[in-house]
Amino acid sequence: MSSSNVKKVALAYSGGLDTSVILKWLEETYGCEVVTFTADLGQGEEVEPARAKAQAMGVKEIYIDDLREEFARDFVFPMFRANAIYEGEYLLGTSIARPLIAKRLIEIANETGADAIAHGATGKGNDQVRFELGAYALRPDIRVIAPWREWDLTSRETLLAYAEKHGIPIEMKRGKASPYSMDANLLHISYEGGILEDPWAEPEEDMWRWSVSPENAPDQPTYVELTYERGDIVAIDGERLTPAAVLAKLNQLGGANGIGRLDIVENRYVGMKSRGCYETPGGTIMLKAHRAIESLTLDREVAHLKDELMPRYASLIYTGYWWSPERRMLQQMIDASQAPVNGVVRVKLYKGNVSVAGRKSESNSLFDMNIATFEDDRGAYNQKDAEGFIKLNALRLRIAGRKGASFI
Amino acid sequence: MSSSNVKKVALAYSGGLDTSVILKWLEETYGCEVVTFTADLGQGEEVEPARAKAQAMGVKEIYIDDLREEFARDFVFPMFRANAIYEGEYLLGTSIARPLIAKRLIEIANETGADAIAHGATGKGNDQVRFELGAYALRPDIRVIAPWREWDLTSRETLLAYAEKHGIPIEMKRGKASPYSMDANLLHISYEGGILEDPWAEPEEDMWRWSVSPENAPDQPTYVELTYERGDIVAIDGERLTPAAVLAKLNQLGGANGIGRLDIVENRYVGMKSRGCYETPGGTIMLKAHRAIESLTLDREVAHLKDELMPRYASLIYTGYWWSPERRMLQQMIDASQAPVNGVVRVKLYKGNVSVAGRKSESNSLFDMNIATFEDDRGAYNQKDAEGFIKLNALRLRIAGRKGASFI
Amino acid sequence: MSSSNVKKVALAYSGGLDTSVILKWLEETYGCEVVTFTADLGQGEEVEPARAKAQAMGVKEIYIDDLREEFARDFVFPMFRANAIYEGEYLLGTSIARPLIAKRLIEIANETGADAIAHGATGKGNDQVRFELGAYALRPDIRVIAPWREWDLTSRETLLAYAEKHGIPIEMKRGKASPYSMDANLLHISYEGGILEDPWAEPEEDMWRWSVSPENAPDQPTYVELTYERGDIVAIDGERLTPAAVLAKLNQLGGANGIGRLDIVENRYVGMKSRGCYETPGGTIMLKAHRAIESLTLDREVAHLKDELMPRYASLIYTGYWWSPERRMLQQMIDASQAPVNGVVRVKLYKGNVSVAGRKSESNSLFDMNIATFEDDRGAYNQKDAEGFIKLNALRLRIAGRKGASFI
Amino acid sequence: MSSSNVKKVALAYSGGLDTSVILKWLEETYGCEVVTFTADLGQGEEVEPARAKAQAMGVKEIYIDDLREEFARDFVFPMFRANAIYEGEYLLGTSIARPLIAKRLIEIANETGADAIAHGATGKGNDQVRFELGAYALRPDIRVIAPWREWDLTSRETLLAYAEKHGIPIEMKRGKASPYSMDANLLHISYEGGILEDPWAEPEEDMWRWSVSPENAPDQPTYVELTYERGDIVAIDGERLTPAAVLAKLNQLGGANGIGRLDIVENRYVGMKSRGCYETPGGTIMLKAHRAIESLTLDREVAHLKDELMPRYASLIYTGYWWSPERRMLQQMIDASQAPVNGVVRVKLYKGNVSVAGRKSESNSLFDMNIATFEDDRGAYNQKDAEGFIKLNALRLRIAGRKGASFI
Repeated sequence: MSSSNVKKVALAYSGGLDTSVILKWLEETYGCEVVTFTADLGQGEEVEPARAKAQAMGVKEIYIDDLREEFARDFVFPMFRANAIYEGEYLLGTSIARPLIAKRLIEIANETGADAIAHGATGKGNDQVRFELGAYALRPDIRVIAPWREWDLTSRETLLAYAEKHGIPIEMKRGKASPYSMDANLLHISYEGGILEDPWAEPEEDMWRWSVSPENAPDQPTYVELTYERGDIVAIDGERLTPAAVLAKLNQLGGANGIGRLDIVENRYVGMKSRGCYETPGGTIMLKAHRAIESLTLDREVAHLKDELMPRYASLIYTGYWWSPERRMLQQMIDASQAPVNGVVRVKLYKGNVSVAGRKSESNSLFDMNIATFEDDRGAYNQKDAEGFIKLNALRLRIAGRKGASFI
Repeated sequence: MSSSNVKKVALAYSGGLDTSVILKWLEETYGCEVVTFTADLGQGEEVEPARAKAQAMGVKEIYIDDLREEFARDFVFPMFRANAIYEGEYLLGTSIARPLIAKRLIEIANETGADAIAHGATGKGNDQVRFELGAYALRPDIRVIAPWREWDLTSRETLLAYAEKHGIPIEMKRGKASPYSMDANLLHISYEGGILEDPWAEPEEDMWRWSVSPENAPDQPTYVELTYERGDIVAIDGERLTPAAVLAKLNQLGGANGIGRLDIVENRYVGMKSRGCYETPGGTIMLKAHRAIESLTLDREVAHLKDELMPRYASLIYTGYWWSPERRMLQQMIDASQAPVNGVVRVKLYKGNVSVAGRKSESNSLFDMNIATFEDDRGAYNQKDAEGFIKLNALRLRIAGRKGASFI
Repeated sequence: MSSSNVKKVALAYSGGLDTSVILKWLEETYGCEVVTFTADLGQGEEVEPARAKAQAMGVKEIYIDDLREEFARDFVFPMFRANAIYEGEYLLGTSIARPLIAKRLIEIANETGADAIAHGATGKGNDQVRFELGAYALRPDIRVIAPWREWDLTSRETLLAYAEKHGIPIEMKRGKASPYSMDANLLHISYEGGILEDPWAEPEEDMWRWSVSPENAPDQPTYVELTYERGDIVAIDGERLTPAAVLAKLNQLGGANGIGRLDIVENRYVGMKSRGCYETPGGTIMLKAHRAIESLTLDREVAHLKDELMPRYASLIYTGYWWSPERRMLQQMIDASQAPVNGVVRVKLYKGNVSVAGRKSESNSLFDMNIATFEDDRGAYNQKDAEGFIKLNALRLRIAGRKGASFI
Repeated sequence: MSSSNVKKVALAYSGGLDTSVILKWLEETYGCEVVTFTADLGQGEEVEPARAKAQAMGVKEIYIDDLREEFARDFVFPMFRANAIYEGEYLLGTSIARPLIAKRLIEIANETGADAIAHGATGKGNDQVRFELGAYALRPDIRVIAPWREWDLTSRETLLAYAEKHGIPIEMKRGKASPYSMDANLLHISYEGGILEDPWAEPEEDMWRWSVSPENAPDQPTYVELTYERGDIVAIDGERLTPAAVLAKLNQLGGANGIGRLDIVENRYVGMKSRGCYETPGGTIMLKAHRAIESLTLDREVAHLKDELMPRYASLIYTGYWWSPERRMLQQMIDASQAPVNGVVRVKLYKGNVSVAGRKSESNSLFDMNIATFEDDRGAYNQKDAEGFIKLNALRLRIAGRKGASFI
């Protein structure tokens, strides 16, 4: 693709070494202006230093946005209404942040008259797909520049040499450099690379950053009450909180109780298996509690339909199709299902365990003690109905049996 | 239905009060002979006392079967190949035992010339459905007698009075009587009724029988290595074990480490919600470990297809359709998928947590370190391929965007 | 069930012999008052005679409703948005009328203070289920009386004798009585029974009532243009029509061209297979045309998701779950998908064939001639992108192949 | 990609202009030897002329294979067991031939020591994907050359100029050249391009090659009896035929009766919509007849599960994943389901219509006239069972209704 006609690029800029090198490389390679965009998604690091760095590198248009509420409210919460888990384990912490970054990058490109966007994701991962599918959906003719797929700075050494040559400061992170590739936001922190590239190797305890180990968690359990409205948590222990505050609070509670660590091999969209470790303290609590409030308030067949569609919904988010009509279509169905999902769930947090200690819903409980009871139900349920129910459900099996269908 | 023409009934007989009353009631009501069938499914109670009781009540044909290996090998293991969970939580411990009992009951009816079977399940639950669908599928013209749907002994008092009147011994279980309705087998033990009928009430610690609480579990983790062949565990820590021995061993390890407790509200097939508590120590370990070995050895799309069909497969087992052609059809597909599921999973057990500490497969690992690596891959993967991959996946979104489909 | 406490029954009353006998039988058996409800659903027979009959039998509250527009607009049209077909063939003509009758029956019961409803469906069919599930969903404590499941008038002879004894006029339909059990409404007419009970027997030509045979249809094709808005036909050949008028017009056009006959064996919800013949002239045209307009305006993945969920949606309607939360949830998703389904389809009708002769959509076509063309596309599509697309889609297959997965 | 190291290429060679140019271009561009492979898949043209042409162009290793039986038996027949249709309309005639060509191409590459394969599919279509996914799955390290994605002969003129320059004979097809891009095999013939690029334009009558128009078909219907064994047609009108002979015979019968024309807009895997016309005379009959024999012999839930999975199975074939583990997994399930699909279907062919005139199965019919009958069934079915069946199926709806869930 010709590099001739790029005038201005909106770059997803973290302030770190890699994206600083990209910034310079874009200017050099494309002779273009660069607009930087740095988002606070709750990753737990200051974003303001990115402004100073961008300024030092001569950037004129610098965007620093606090997107935590939007992230929690419009991305994380809708996803949890679906009980989304990828491949039975992964809570999609990285995946769900990408569409928001893509959207903001396009908005900034539109505002600043940029004709391209750029990002620092590699050509092997899912993130490039998530960024770019989002960008193309939101602005079909946008030019996308993915330096890792283009340049020849393919080793750590060449990258550092480039930085040195161009006067880009190579700060070491506090303490010793992590051997892992990490990504964090309000929902989770992830680790890849290093010894994790051997799926038989157990990660060392000091890799984990957001949670104490179950071993080091308190010896006393913590009980928490979560109030749900239309499928979303709106209060913790009776205190109303914004979505971002809910996530922050649950991360704190979960992390302190050793909750939310995960170590998996997953299937990337680009076709390879990769090993990843994740800490999702708040999300782990949210999934368990959401299922509990749904168990009380959701119709059986609605719940089962949601369960059958969930893997596909989760895959759509994992593979970067948040901004697709099929994800939206599923979301409309999921959101509609949540109207009766109101009530309170009491969870017990203890050394890595989240257990449900109670669930109630004044307005929407479908649990009918009079019918379910083992005691005399005074006619609420006629046990004789069961005979006809079974007989007709068995009819096709009986007809087949008589015709000789054999099982034993 | 006329009671005139029943000559001999094969009864699922536990030896307890309820089924002893049923035994007598059948003889009285139907003027028929009763054959008793008592199975050792690993419930942890002796089955021989049932023989003595049946003899004392004058039964001539008494079947006492040790079905533990058949149960583990032909029912539990195939189900775990599917990663089956009902409604996101329940490991189907009761559900999976019923089709075996139904099958054996029909076999015994066939052997003894019985023209009917009887069971002690109530008219409100799932078990009646599971027993009867199985029976009808395996012998379409069998007569089924479900005393709880027929008689007027609907309260504890009337039942006890009937027992006393007919000289049926009312032994109390060891210690004080449990306030819960329980069911146990090699896979799990369940609790219903009593204070559990209030979904807001947390069960008391002394309800649980198979596991210590996480609080009381050892302060040191236990590591275990599980060897898989074609999706089944065949060895623990290198020692080859039969399926039943695998389950027993994992129950012991899981129970000692506080693993496998569950407290849920579930949707019964007969249309009501009910509260149940379950202990499934070994099964909880098996599910986690099976997903881990699959994550390494199963193709992505095969795994996703399994995940999408799993809820339906689990529902089929929950609702009693084990002996149906659609369950068999799904099973054939699931079993076929397991050919490459070979290798070893190392799990860490600690105070209620099961975590995967490693997974490997010499013969079938699809994890390719050369491709996945963050380091230089020497051309194993061409990052430039990603551009075309993304571009064509985005094409439909771009066309729609140009035509004005709007998201923001 | 005790018959003591029924005071007033709302009866779905056709005015024919069967429901007239039911009317009398209800009064006699339950000592209750009967309210009759007769609906014009487009069955093609006058409904006013039912009023005279009901009056003659002494009924005081008589409801005669023209429900054709409501039926077409709120039931038939939403169903066709889903491209619903049961078991690959059946357009659900009977199924979709039942929930409307159930709803109106409950409304009338509510208005007249009736404590029960009654219908003339037998205990072997699907219609009893559809009526009653609807009634229970809309008024949970309604009493339902299904005489065919209760009485002993199980043969034609006993029924006629009862009618004679109670002075119920036994009018013969015009011409000789049909040997078939029939049901008709604006969407279709159905035939069951008689020689159809042999699945090897071909129905005689004179059974069919709504369409000429393809053999007798005109030798010249008829072309029609159908205008769609949000998935619904709003105009035919440029003339705006109401939903009921659309159906009526397409029935006329289809019937005249020998379109819409169907002869199948289907699986009833109550567990048996049954043979049915159907004429659905307008519906057959609608299905073909709706797929055509969707093919131009719907995103690929949205269309595929709809296709995968369609069989379940169709089953829900077939089995009587229109008034269920899961059907509503699916409907919300389907309706949302139809926003871009606008445009015109030109169909050719000829001797039983419906073929699409053209489709266009000014506002929403996603067909991009510049990209799809076999001619030079001037860079609209970069063919080189396909290489990366294929390479990454093949990656998992290649890795597996290298590990020895074998196909040939 | 460097062109340096290709020594021998196995080329899918039709003998036509395009692949002859490719043959020469490969030799020139890669300095490699070319092996040609020409298959008789029933496209209706002689394959021997391709041998002469290849010889004339100096090819030393020439493969001419009659694959008609393998194609019908191992590809078309298995696909029809699934009732596969893509996007509600397309019978996958082109899609299903590609995996066989890919397989044979790899076999020939293996036999001749070729290190690459080449094909003549463009970079815009599905066929490149189907060829290449198959090739990579069957020989992961194969080099694939797709000249249309590489060269600069992008217009008809440059192609002809190249041919002339290299002495490649430019024979005109018999009669005037077709304005359409066509593909044919035993299952179908397809048309794309030309005026079809306008979805509003109706194709001209003289485009169609395999069938008479319904207008020109005989005025008398043709009846045919198809005998099924395990889901496959094994005899027509009592005469046992091989799979290829079955297809050929049904094509002849269907084509003569104006059956199997289709005109659609479809969604390609590479992201665009395209217009295509198809003639599939035999396949259209097979789909209708297969559903009919299944309707009699397949369990309801098995049939429904097949219907729900069918769209995904069809997509897998359409997008080129025949040689994938997920297609194989689905196929195992589908094939297993066909064990009872035995019997005879009688179809009526008349001016474009295929209708079922009868179906029977001595060994496997699940249609039970005694139960289904409208006449007195002498107790085969107890209508009272329906009450309990409905009551329990309604229970969740009633509970929800009492809690205030509202529909009207």
